[in-house]
Amino acid sequence: MAEPMLALSTSEHYTLTLTRVMVLENPLRIIVVGGVAGGMSAATRARRLSEHAQITVFEQGPFVSYASCGVPYALGHIIKDDLALVVQTPQSFKQRFNIDVYVNSEVVTVDRATKDVTVRVEGQHELQVFTLRTIDDMKAIRQFIKVNECQKAAVIGGGFIGFEAAENLQCLGLQATVIEQLPHVFAPMDADIAQAIHDELQRHNVKLLLGSKVTRIHQNDKKHLETVSKVAVDTTNGGSVHVDFVVLCVGAQPRTSLAAAVGLELGTKGVTINEYMQISDPDIYAVGDMVETMNIVSLDTTVMAHAGPASRQGRCAANHMLGQSHRYRGSIGTWVCKVFDLTIASTGLSVTELQRLGSPVQWITIHPYDHASYYPGAAPMTLRVTFTPDQGQLLGAQIVGKSGVDKRIDVLLTAILACMRVHDLEHLELAYAPPYSSAKDPVNMAGFVGSNVVRGDVKIMHARDVAGLLDTHQVVDVRNPAEHLHGHLPGAMNYPLTELRQKHHHLDFDRGILVYCQDGYRGYLAYRILTQLGFMVANLDGGYESYRAHRGND
Amino acid sequence: MAEPMLALSTSEHYTLTLTRVMVLENPLRIIVVGGVAGGMSAATRARRLSEHAQITVFEQGPFVSYASCGVPYALGHIIKDDLALVVQTPQSFKQRFNIDVYVNSEVVTVDRATKDVTVRVEGQHELQVFTLRTIDDMKAIRQFIKVNECQKAAVIGGGFIGFEAAENLQCLGLQATVIEQLPHVFAPMDADIAQAIHDELQRHNVKLLLGSKVTRIHQNDKKHLETVSKVAVDTTNGGSVHVDFVVLCVGAQPRTSLAAAVGLELGTKGVTINEYMQISDPDIYAVGDMVETMNIVSLDTTVMAHAGPASRQGRCAANHMLGQSHRYRGSIGTWVCKVFDLTIASTGLSVTELQRLGSPVQWITIHPYDHASYYPGAAPMTLRVTFTPDQGQLLGAQIVGKSGVDKRIDVLLTAILACMRVHDLEHLELAYAPPYSSAKDPVNMAGFVGSNVVRGDVKIMHARDVAGLLDTHQVVDVRNPAEHLHGHLPGAMNYPLTELRQKHHHLDFDRGILVYCQDGYRGYLAYRILTQLGFMVANLDGGYESYRAHRGND
Repeated sequence: MAEPMLALSTSEHYTLTLTRVMVLENPLRIIVVGGVAGGMSAATRARRLSEHAQITVFEQGPFVSYASCGVPYALGHIIKDDLALVVQTPQSFKQRFNIDVYVNSEVVTVDRATKDVTVRVEGQHELQVFTLRTIDDMKAIRQFIKVNECQKAAVIGGGFIGFEAAENLQCLGLQATVIEQLPHVFAPMDADIAQAIHDELQRHNVKLLLGSKVTRIHQNDKKHLETVSKVAVDTTNGGSVHVDFVVLCVGAQPRTSLAAAVGLELGTKGVTINEYMQISDPDIYAVGDMVETMNIVSLDTTVMAHAGPASRQGRCAANHMLGQSHRYRGSIGTWVCKVFDLTIASTGLSVTELQRLGSPVQWITIHPYDHASYYPGAAPMTLRVTFTPDQGQLLGAQIVGKSGVDKRIDVLLTAILACMRVHDLEHLELAYAPPYSSAKDPVNMAGFVGSNVVRGDVKIMHARDVAGLLDTHQVVDVRNPAEHLHGHLPGAMNYPLTELRQKHHHLDFDRGILVYCQDGYRGYLAYRILTQLGFMVANLDGGYESYRAHRGND
Repeated sequence: MAEPMLALSTSEHYTLTLTRVMVLENPLRIIVVGGVAGGMSAATRARRLSEHAQITVFEQGPFVSYASCGVPYALGHIIKDDLALVVQTPQSFKQRFNIDVYVNSEVVTVDRATKDVTVRVEGQHELQVFTLRTIDDMKAIRQFIKVNECQKAAVIGGGFIGFEAAENLQCLGLQATVIEQLPHVFAPMDADIAQAIHDELQRHNVKLLLGSKVTRIHQNDKKHLETVSKVAVDTTNGGSVHVDFVVLCVGAQPRTSLAAAVGLELGTKGVTINEYMQISDPDIYAVGDMVETMNIVSLDTTVMAHAGPASRQGRCAANHMLGQSHRYRGSIGTWVCKVFDLTIASTGLSVTELQRLGSPVQWITIHPYDHASYYPGAAPMTLRVTFTPDQGQLLGAQIVGKSGVDKRIDVLLTAILACMRVHDLEHLELAYAPPYSSAKDPVNMAGFVGSNVVRGDVKIMHARDVAGLLDTHQVVDVRNPAEHLHGHLPGAMNYPLTELRQKHHHLDFDRGILVYCQDGYRGYLAYRILTQLGFMVANLDGGYESYRAHRGND
């Protein structure tokens, strides 16, 4: 086809040149199995790249494009209108994208030789035990609560879907009990950071059973006087929880049964793919929570059950089908969750994960305000950054607080993806005005503290290591006496920072000193004073607040 | 001095080794001229590095360490307690840092040979014309309003201090008039982005005089019946503004008079320094809004009147004095400002600035929601990213909206400082849950749209260039008829996106087409349909919303 050109100089700096593009001669036929984030992202990107491809989508459920992440909030009426969750319909996909969408259509087999797919309609629900992924799940729970006048529910799983479920059930006036098999909620976080969430749940009357594995869910056969609940949830810690119904939030198990049936290669966690989301059969692509991708930080394989990565993977697959090869870069593993008035967020790898992988790790913990403390609404957050001990290469971050948490996690993951070191966080010229931040943003503060550690300007120790040092070291609390009386480390001597220059001769010059304050800052100042006087000192990372959070998980 | 070592292995992955550090033999004597962000940051960092240095601070005003950025909000009683702005006192500096601080002490001369400084006390106020930088400024205004029962004030300068002043005066029930000599507020922004602020000010009854240079401020000699105001502000656009008092917010002029008197080298904008904040005399350092630093993006010299850079510069200077050489990396130029219910923020260089510098520039403009549109409180923002046309190297960003603006500017400036390209924004795995963002965050969206432009998947044109193309091109509005009727481009034909596949034969195959929708997305889909049918097309960047904002500045 000819390529006429139409060039118009429209301003000093801008020339608009319009050209005709080439059209593909042999249009592709693309079948997408499964809608929502990954599938629809692939289908619509393919259409944008090729007006001539034949694109068909089969979705097992009744909705092809809905906001699954909003489902828990529709349950709790935070989102008032269920239909607000329906992003697109089969009709709107046909009109806007010329894509044929079939809902309530489960693909049960794929013949890789003939490229035929077999489809069937399905639908079922188990009584009293629900999941909370789809709009139908949510409606079923809502209906069940109404018909049975429910008052108590068990949520199995202390991850983000579990907490969204629990919070929204509480919004409806129910008593929710969250059952988690690990000793703390939010598995990707370190235990002491997650501790703030345990406190927040208690403040909002959510019951929490930690370290409790569910062994059996059954009809409540004991007719207790104090309960009319119909379901008993037996757990390994001995007891049973009696409730009206159960919501299973134990993480979406990747649905790889079709993939296995079709003979796709499965790794230990999901379907194996290349960097273009292609399986070993080059005519089949796989995206979403069924595939194994690379964790960019650990370089391990990972499965991401998140809308963002699924959508980027779908786009990547469609690009490759239609001749654009932009590889999928892997996942860093980011999540954020609202838990009542708190926000908790994580990216990259925690201390616990890094130690499990046997990787060398250092970390710092700070408790800064989200914005200028003198401007209304300021609230403290706890921010931890993990990095390599020698070079300060950033590996992960975890934050919990009332506001500004999502902002800092996004900045930190951008820094990690840019291969920054903790030193580089000092230099980020983050936007500052009193309603939004401080002249030294929490991310800058993490940079100052972390780079002081890497450069050796301060030596720190962590709350988990304190117990092993108490017998051999002097412990010095540099807070003021009122703070000290309110709670302190075992055997700590109280020398307020402002008196330390006068009173240091009371300390034993030949024994190591563990110094601490409330959040780490005054401890650092004391460290600098004492080391320059010749003492051997370490400062407690995150101060007494981090020590207390650590103790809360003992 | 001996260096005994005390090594304790406290856990599997962590070994605490305490050592004695060396102490400097000849302590430095450091005199800091000027307190607040830059000066106190240098003084306290120096103390942390050296317990033995003699550190003295002279501050011209009565407060040595106060939150100057909070001053406008104390005026409006958003911050209830003035004392909340006082961060540290001379007494607390002495106690905590062993630093001698003298307030109300202006350094008038420095003898570089003897290293003596001469100090004098000062203080004065002009009646009816105020600045708003210090706590005393704020108190003087508040007192003046009370005594004179003021009702009207003129704010000269449409930058962020001007708007903080205007908003807080309105909070006190006054009528504020902002006078700006440029045709739009917020000089670092592009005119069409700043337009949203003009609208917001009108909604809150702030009067706005644009393109008006103040020629004279004088006693109001005309006894108008309609006013009892005492001050007349004459402007170049012909009129006079009659008010009770004036607040000058025209940007803090760098106070380089002392520097000049002492014979320091001055560039065109401020004091010339090296990368360690040292002037040509190696015993003198200069930091804050008096020095010229490098703009990292333009590589031009710049003066930053911001607390964050001042504080980092102070730290950098102290490091160098005490033997740690970490160079100051320069400034990217970031700011954020609350204007009533809106937030406006900018980083790096705008289109206008880049064109003024003669740099090649491309840009994209989007109008995404700050978080999932179905979750309560979602509001649209306008986000512009500037980048190099050929490689997509990020150069700057501007955002205006109700919430989530500060988050996106911080992510974008981190990406710019990491030398990312617009393509890289696609891949940022930003934290997503419905209360915080969308599966495709606004920053990801900017990446999708920007990389489509750089890769040539779409050709765009900008609102400013539309007028020059109307005669020669077909203009196609792909919104629905109701949107079209509500306002459209001159001569636009209305073919809704959903009908375009059926109706494209109405279009002239041999004439270029300008396609547009409300915000740019449907226009992009129409672009993809039409170009694949062989048409020559460009999509309007930012759609009709950006066109309307551009027209608002005509």
